[in-house]
Amino acid sequence: MFQDLLKDVITRTDGALAGLVMGLDGISVDVYIAEGDSPIEVENVGMEYSVILKEIKRAAELLDAGTAREISIQAEKLTTVIRLINDDYFVAIALRPDGNYGKARFLLRTAAPKLASELGS
Amino acid sequence: MFQDLLKDVITRTDGALAGLVMGLDGISVDVYIAEGDSPIEVENVGMEYSVILKEIKRAAELLDAGTAREISIQAEKLTTVIRLINDDYFVAIALRPDGNYGKARFLLRTAAPKLASELGS
Repeated sequence: MFQDLLKDVITRTDGALAGLVMGLDGISVDVYIAEGDSPIEVENVGMEYSVILKEIKRAAELLDAGTAREISIQAEKLTTVIRLINDDYFVAIALRPDGNYGKARFLLRTAAPKLASELGS
Repeated sequence: MFQDLLKDVITRTDGALAGLVMGLDGISVDVYIAEGDSPIEVENVGMEYSVILKEIKRAAELLDAGTAREISIQAEKLTTVIRLINDDYFVAIALRPDGNYGKARFLLRTAAPKLASELGS
């Protein structure tokens, strides 16, 4: 089910390389990789960003900005869109820098409630 | 000059609350606040996010994603768009959640080279 949702987001987003559902503890629940991308790399991206995500969550609450919902990181060679599913899990999509960032955000926003109900929250 | 550039971005972006130019060490260079917003809060946002930004920068390099250029954080009550100016400084805009996020990104992208040349980089 996670695979299906991730596959749907990845195949409908131009330039999407991979997607994953992961715990904020850095342990992945499921990964979907577009053809030609490396599975190891994707989990590394998730693990690195899960640490940062926890800090963003904490900072947003501290600053009274409310719950953090979406984070995106544009780097020279990779764009990452991250959506918090609930207090413990997030979904992330990695895109080429010229990928359809707006579409990725939109599809993650609509997928998040479905992922939340799959995760039983 | 920083003030002028920040003011220009803030006044042209619907829902923008404040902007600041800050070092990655959390020391602010300049701040511009739209009417009614609190100056103390803005510097706090900058300081909290400067710590996170350093980690994102490190993670992106570690992951071979290249230099991090732009980070945005959507929280329940605040959207923040951050653009790295150079290795030591960033510019950030805080928006209401319903503010014009696309416009903020665009204006920061065009302002960044001007800010970089002001900072002598």
